[in-house]
Amino acid sequence: MSTDWDRVLAPRSVALIGATGRADNPMARPLRWLTERGFAGRVHPVNPKYAELGGVPCVASLAEVPGGVDLALALVPAERAAAAVTEAGAAGAAAVVVFASGFAEVGDEGRALQDELVAAARAAGTRVLGPNCQGLYDARSRLFATFTGAGERPLTGSSGIAYVGQSGAIGGSVLDVAAERGLDLSAWVSTGNEADVSLTEIGRHLVANPEITVLTVYAESLPDPDDYAALAAEARAHATALVVLRSGRSEPGRRAAVSHTGAMLGDDTAFRLVSRRHGVVLVDDVEELLAAATMLRGRHGPAGRSVGLVTSSGGAGILAADRASDAGLAVPELTAETQEKLARLVPAFGAVANPVDVTAQLFNDGGEFGEVCGIVRADASVDAVLVLLTMLVGETAVALARDLAATVAEQGPDAPPVAVVWMAGEDGTAPARALLREAGIPVFSSIALAVRVLDAVAAPPGAVPAPTAPLDPVPGDGWDLLDALGVRRARSLRSSDPAGDVAELGGTAVLKAEGLEHKTESGAVRLGVRTSEAAAVHAELAALPGVTGVLVQEQVPAGVELLVSVDGGRDGWPPVLTVGHGGTATEVHRDVVHALAPVTPETARTMLGELRCWPLLEGHRGAPGVDLDAAVDAIVRLSRACDVPGLGELEVNPLVLRPASRTSDAASLASEARIATRSDPRHAVAVDVLRTEK
Amino acid sequence: MSTDWDRVLAPRSVALIGATGRADNPMARPLRWLTERGFAGRVHPVNPKYAELGGVPCVASLAEVPGGVDLALALVPAERAAAAVTEAGAAGAAAVVVFASGFAEVGDEGRALQDELVAAARAAGTRVLGPNCQGLYDARSRLFATFTGAGERPLTGSSGIAYVGQSGAIGGSVLDVAAERGLDLSAWVSTGNEADVSLTEIGRHLVANPEITVLTVYAESLPDPDDYAALAAEARAHATALVVLRSGRSEPGRRAAVSHTGAMLGDDTAFRLVSRRHGVVLVDDVEELLAAATMLRGRHGPAGRSVGLVTSSGGAGILAADRASDAGLAVPELTAETQEKLARLVPAFGAVANPVDVTAQLFNDGGEFGEVCGIVRADASVDAVLVLLTMLVGETAVALARDLAATVAEQGPDAPPVAVVWMAGEDGTAPARALLREAGIPVFSSIALAVRVLDAVAAPPGAVPAPTAPLDPVPGDGWDLLDALGVRRARSLRSSDPAGDVAELGGTAVLKAEGLEHKTESGAVRLGVRTSEAAAVHAELAALPGVTGVLVQEQVPAGVELLVSVDGGRDGWPPVLTVGHGGTATEVHRDVVHALAPVTPETARTMLGELRCWPLLEGHRGAPGVDLDAAVDAIVRLSRACDVPGLGELEVNPLVLRPASRTSDAASLASEARIATRSDPRHAVAVDVLRTEK
Repeated sequence: MSTDWDRVLAPRSVALIGATGRADNPMARPLRWLTERGFAGRVHPVNPKYAELGGVPCVASLAEVPGGVDLALALVPAERAAAAVTEAGAAGAAAVVVFASGFAEVGDEGRALQDELVAAARAAGTRVLGPNCQGLYDARSRLFATFTGAGERPLTGSSGIAYVGQSGAIGGSVLDVAAERGLDLSAWVSTGNEADVSLTEIGRHLVANPEITVLTVYAESLPDPDDYAALAAEARAHATALVVLRSGRSEPGRRAAVSHTGAMLGDDTAFRLVSRRHGVVLVDDVEELLAAATMLRGRHGPAGRSVGLVTSSGGAGILAADRASDAGLAVPELTAETQEKLARLVPAFGAVANPVDVTAQLFNDGGEFGEVCGIVRADASVDAVLVLLTMLVGETAVALARDLAATVAEQGPDAPPVAVVWMAGEDGTAPARALLREAGIPVFSSIALAVRVLDAVAAPPGAVPAPTAPLDPVPGDGWDLLDALGVRRARSLRSSDPAGDVAELGGTAVLKAEGLEHKTESGAVRLGVRTSEAAAVHAELAALPGVTGVLVQEQVPAGVELLVSVDGGRDGWPPVLTVGHGGTATEVHRDVVHALAPVTPETARTMLGELRCWPLLEGHRGAPGVDLDAAVDAIVRLSRACDVPGLGELEVNPLVLRPASRTSDAASLASEARIATRSDPRHAVAVDVLRTEK
Repeated sequence: MSTDWDRVLAPRSVALIGATGRADNPMARPLRWLTERGFAGRVHPVNPKYAELGGVPCVASLAEVPGGVDLALALVPAERAAAAVTEAGAAGAAAVVVFASGFAEVGDEGRALQDELVAAARAAGTRVLGPNCQGLYDARSRLFATFTGAGERPLTGSSGIAYVGQSGAIGGSVLDVAAERGLDLSAWVSTGNEADVSLTEIGRHLVANPEITVLTVYAESLPDPDDYAALAAEARAHATALVVLRSGRSEPGRRAAVSHTGAMLGDDTAFRLVSRRHGVVLVDDVEELLAAATMLRGRHGPAGRSVGLVTSSGGAGILAADRASDAGLAVPELTAETQEKLARLVPAFGAVANPVDVTAQLFNDGGEFGEVCGIVRADASVDAVLVLLTMLVGETAVALARDLAATVAEQGPDAPPVAVVWMAGEDGTAPARALLREAGIPVFSSIALAVRVLDAVAAPPGAVPAPTAPLDPVPGDGWDLLDALGVRRARSLRSSDPAGDVAELGGTAVLKAEGLEHKTESGAVRLGVRTSEAAAVHAELAALPGVTGVLVQEQVPAGVELLVSVDGGRDGWPPVLTVGHGGTATEVHRDVVHALAPVTPETARTMLGELRCWPLLEGHRGAPGVDLDAAVDAIVRLSRACDVPGLGELEVNPLVLRPASRTSDAASLASEARIATRSDPRHAVAVDVLRTEK
């Protein structure tokens, strides 16, 4: 169903079904705000008990409204919501906001009510926002279709920041705290249970609005990952920053989320990879959500992760340098040219390398603080400038703010972003803070917060996956799959002549009893078996209880062992490739990196470089490095497993990597693989096991 | 020199040497504040140019003041400071505050001036606070002996929180922001360059003051670690919480710190271990410093790391659960009994497990929010309660605060601490926040900050090192040291008969060329040499260039390899034991834990359990576990190396650990050790190298 969202966010007419006359009821707020705050459309309270409400004529039913309405608010209890939806649909409403709770979030009975609601909307040709939501607000149309307590504020401005999220309470905090900081939101939508309309659908409409430069999102669940990816892609296409706070990542958080919305949570790794791919800024707290929005409002983020620090206090500079380093941001020494320029302005007992410490002296002398910041901002090694101020208050603070704002404006919006941390009471610095805010310079009170936000907005863009393509022919399970992908594996033989098999494999081989769960642990793997011993060992293994056969395998020489696995994608999230330090101690190393599958060679190479065990691949303590090209090739090929229809998971461990000096076809070797199909993901099929000689 | 700090913090008389008549000069502030704000002592401006200043008679020199003074403020430039100190000492001042900069922080010339200053103080029998400091403030005596801009506030309260630190700018921020939040500091001291008086010396005086329940410290350098440990121990003895913000931990931070104060920074690991040993709360930001102080003001911290979450918004509860889990705090399910009690108060669509979601409904019904929090607080599995509020403002907020404060007061101070995160604008919640603050309940605006502070104040206490004792006899370098410590090592022989040596070691041994830097890399180590091959291999190795001899060593069977090192202590910090995942890939694993040396068996056992590689020690994937008693014994013995006079560093890698089923004396074996003496720490002596068979 194609919905005209302009009819929802800027309706010509709004009906309030079940409008209340009790002024102290929070549900009386929408009518009061709609009639008192400059909403230009028509307002129709619907309640047979009243002739008028809030100075507006009341109708007994929506059918009495000539020409129908664009938007309806259902201010009725859960059990009457479906009827309200039907009535609104008949009146031509593009959407109905259902505020009531008591739906899917309270169990089966509520879920039935919710299904009824959706059915009513479908039948009536309208959409439902909610239920169990707090509605919406639009600054331009002055539409207060919400009862959030934050709506008590005048909200006359429009910061270019919008909010959409499942939680109205979190949304209320964002709206309220932003407004207190002088950043009235441009639009605000609480989607609640999302029985019909999702945050991604509304989000896609909001990011296309040129007046909105940042969309903040709070999500407890993202049931349709493709929709989320589409939202992220469209935000990027419209140059609208997308800042997402997702909750329910931890075990207790998930426990709470399930009890809160009953929603199934998707996979966090895939969520993060999809987000990074599209340049979404991820945050972990409401404070960070707002701080990131402030940082990105109407301007681009930093182009990289190097930060220039300018401070009035040596101590603040050191603290900021510590925190930035902790966050993995660089605090590079400024160029000699920059330092020379700075030395002409900064007192001798200050510092010009980075952090730049102008000392309090500069302000006593009425010095050129803005110019100092401008010089640092112009340094080619700096992607963002963080200004740290301590006890500069009152008139000094205002003069400083004016000076800094003028320099930033003069240098233009393409220079690196500038943010300020002001470590002094709000009261002594309020006018100065307001001046900076008006100049588009965000002001924080905490070094830690500013650095966390810089880290978030300067996160390097994630890799774009390689194009997927159907595999032809579709391989079967097991070794066939590796063969189809073109991944070299240990040779295996299973003739009636074990000695002959060993001889064919070079005179020494591995014999393995098949059909056992934990081969290594149960003694079912025998290394270094020579031709002469083959028959005896074969007989021994065949006699083990539960054995279904005995395999003779090429003995793989020792090498660096990787884990490579491909998760076929869950709950609609795209497949994920994992590369890690492999071998039997994989769980001990806990050294893994992820990417969306399939990967390009460039991504595979980057992943290897991000592993803690990278020095082992490069060559460590005199040992030769592995053949990286072969490793990259094997990883790229394995990542194509995601193209296998119905893949649950493929795990190769170890993928044995050998030095480049060996013959190239042996430079990477899959010697153990497990494959699970999506149809039965619990049943992991051990395709084969081959321990390597050490 | 024993200083009467009461004469400094509550002086009967203060002289202001070089008092200025220029009202707009920051240096005019101390006189103004001392005369206008209720300071009870006598005030003597000293300046021959004036007859009176600020309504107080001026003297031409301190000699004119009958009976002398307790405290002198030197408001003079650097080059005149020493003379002022001499004059003040002659007048009997217990201390002189030197505000001027231009001393050690500006280079050699300044350092000479600073030395002069200290010499003058010693000669005159007085103490110097500073130079390059912002002075001090004491709430009880109304002593404003500072020019910090934060002093413009009335500062009439006394929160029980004090500050001492090297930075007056950071200190000013703490004083200002705390005051804006209604927490006027009880005492405040900026120590600047610490030419004479250190923050630890003043800190020890402050923690003994029963009115001070929290001492906050900002330190760029702690030149005397013993003093710091003494401060921490005394704070604990007086039940005064000590919250320390140390800067200059990172490389760029250190660069800035050196340029800021010229101070040498001590070892961060030892600092953290000493701090944890004494229960010091460590923070990383000014905001956290203040937040931790707020949390600990006048009450104990949490007894453990389990937090109960109570919220009015499901979303806020999930976010807090996520953050708490990220920080390693537990969010346990509450007991069945607690949940049952809660279920009677919380609406059915809320949650009672933890997080406890009371839903906004509870407030519409005028429900028992305080009682809910009280029930959670009384749950035996909870060490702290974090209350998360969203858009509850105005009268609802005040009623809630009153209710919560009453419950907390009724349950008494021994119950787990309670803190509130209020995610709504300050203006709508200010009276409610003030109510909570007065009830001793800290209020934050950010979940992330509250969780970080809970993490900091609930850090488990660090281990107390075992008593040290001199080793008798003092061992020499190398293997002798291991023998003296009683650590079993690989047997080594070096007779003229290599075949005989190999035979004696069991018929198979390792031969190693000595005198080479990187034995493994240069092929100087030969494993598995049999008696028959011994002579030939010996001759081969002896012929390598640069070889000084050939050693025949016991071949150690494979096992789990640890790194165990003891750092003899640097810059006055105590010795540190490091235990890690060892072997050739130690740098790759980056899996190490630290403790103050020597350690008790309990500490050694705890350290092993904290290693990521712990599963390898316990027994992993069917492999047997190592002999933990033997491992603990070897670690305890090695940690005693710190008792060796002049030890720089001892590093054993690998310490090979074997399963308990083997003969116990082989269960742990040092097979490579490096020792550095403190006299020449750069020259690490490779005592011996033995690769293990794999």
